[in-house]
Amino acid sequence: MTEQNGATATSAAVNGGGSISSIIPGWFSEISPMWPGEAHSLKVEKILFQGKSDYQDVMVFQSATYGKVLVLDGVIQLTERDECAYQEMITHLPLCSISNPKKVLVIGGGDGGVLREVARHSSVEHIDICEIDKMVVDVSKEYFPDVAIGYEDPRVTLHIGDGVAFLKAAQVGSYDAVIVDSSDPIGPAQELFEKPFFESVAKALRPGGVMCTQAESIWLHMDIIEGIVANCHQIFKGSVNYAWTTVPTYPSGVIGFMLCSTEGPEVDFKNPINQIDAKGNKNSSRVPLKFYNREIHAAAFCLPSFAKKLIESKTEN
Amino acid sequence: MTEQNGATATSAAVNGGGSISSIIPGWFSEISPMWPGEAHSLKVEKILFQGKSDYQDVMVFQSATYGKVLVLDGVIQLTERDECAYQEMITHLPLCSISNPKKVLVIGGGDGGVLREVARHSSVEHIDICEIDKMVVDVSKEYFPDVAIGYEDPRVTLHIGDGVAFLKAAQVGSYDAVIVDSSDPIGPAQELFEKPFFESVAKALRPGGVMCTQAESIWLHMDIIEGIVANCHQIFKGSVNYAWTTVPTYPSGVIGFMLCSTEGPEVDFKNPINQIDAKGNKNSSRVPLKFYNREIHAAAFCLPSFAKKLIESKTEN
Repeated sequence: MTEQNGATATSAAVNGGGSISSIIPGWFSEISPMWPGEAHSLKVEKILFQGKSDYQDVMVFQSATYGKVLVLDGVIQLTERDECAYQEMITHLPLCSISNPKKVLVIGGGDGGVLREVARHSSVEHIDICEIDKMVVDVSKEYFPDVAIGYEDPRVTLHIGDGVAFLKAAQVGSYDAVIVDSSDPIGPAQELFEKPFFESVAKALRPGGVMCTQAESIWLHMDIIEGIVANCHQIFKGSVNYAWTTVPTYPSGVIGFMLCSTEGPEVDFKNPINQIDAKGNKNSSRVPLKFYNREIHAAAFCLPSFAKKLIESKTEN
Repeated sequence: MTEQNGATATSAAVNGGGSISSIIPGWFSEISPMWPGEAHSLKVEKILFQGKSDYQDVMVFQSATYGKVLVLDGVIQLTERDECAYQEMITHLPLCSISNPKKVLVIGGGDGGVLREVARHSSVEHIDICEIDKMVVDVSKEYFPDVAIGYEDPRVTLHIGDGVAFLKAAQVGSYDAVIVDSSDPIGPAQELFEKPFFESVAKALRPGGVMCTQAESIWLHMDIIEGIVANCHQIFKGSVNYAWTTVPTYPSGVIGFMLCSTEGPEVDFKNPINQIDAKGNKNSSRVPLKFYNREIHAAAFCLPSFAKKLIESKTEN
């Protein structure tokens, strides 16, 4: 672990071809073939950590206006200022759509934010998390205590390993919900967007169990989304829906979620039946809900016409 | 009007302190005290126009992946790729909330995009537009034909002048709807966010008439929004609501709208009663609706908890 002056470290990282993809001096810029021709930049006050794990480049910096920022392979994963939107929505969209979820599996999500949100549900008895990269867990615990607080819940069991293998080995029909909090489908998360993985998820879920997976941006990745929707329709015989939310520091300012249920008791994702019970959850007082509510849950499934048309065409196939 | 090679012009503009505020070499970066510590950048293929009107710097460039881009005083106003979201929502949120709008006033909106959307409503008989900066109109007609197409509608009357003065002189109770398509409250649009202006709007509207005004980002400008909401509650004695939508090239990826109605027939903005009648509108076939639909209309009024709490606290005052 290294601590360096922001401006100097930033220039060094750029010039040395390190973990920052490109930069205005003193700024972090996110440039990727996943969103060609555009870049979002944050002003860097100080680089707090730079490391290279077995899987990816890991960086944490203190930004001028978005709090601390976690970056993997040059792509922003979370900022303290807007992480609430992503963590709350990817968790409560599935968990508020079924009654009394008891056993939950998180794939990826090494920062612990999804765990923090799952823990708000008092019905939950056991939470497995399978994260491939231990460095992400360690870095989050050190630099993002209000996110990694999720690990403090006694219901959580951490498995460091490959999510694909973990799911293959999971007991059939054992989970009420599987949440896939992955990075983009370029890099270590690629397999998490492919059909064999979705088949494993469906097998691990109980009848009428639910999956929620990060599913890119309707403004940038309709081709990827169409593929995910088509795959999910083949594999999940219950409900298959696409939802989305705002996250300012993600490319195009939005991120989507694929929500699916297995054959069994019907799941109506658009009309949540399960409230978050804040009582009895000691973490809630330290990090209260900021974003999620019943109205925003239902609204997340309303799509602009251009996206609705393409997604529904895959539904009919 | 000037045409220059993109990279050269960009560097020149930066080094000379021209209309581009800052830049990654060959890119346009949007840096402003309105969103400190962050910047969105677009790759520039060619600068098509740079001029200085009596009111502001005006620039048009061809971007690598967002089509042509209109920039005023260094701030992106529209891109060909995502302008549909803003233009359709700022127009149809108010016009689909009342039955048979006939007389509509647009303040600002010199690019013509709001006119294009108003023109989709076959009930509309007359559209006034008051834009302060003729250069914006001329530039849009030259570089953004699918946006400026709004001016081709025979129901449109263009007034070049100050919107504040225009509204003061307007006949009392004469408009069904006033749409305020302004830039940010720094620069020529500042007065359009102040109480005397809202008073003029309310006077110009018929009983139960509606206003929709651009109202910044819930992620960046809650202080400004709280002020607008409080002012509107004092002035508009019908409904007062805040809505928002995604626009990738606006700071934080979202933009909000303040929707208000005057005392009179009740307006329920959240439940649109008026459909867009595509028939009989010759422009619709050239530039079809891409974003707006009934579901996204209703969803636009669902706010994240952090914003809902602050906006509702102003509602109760």
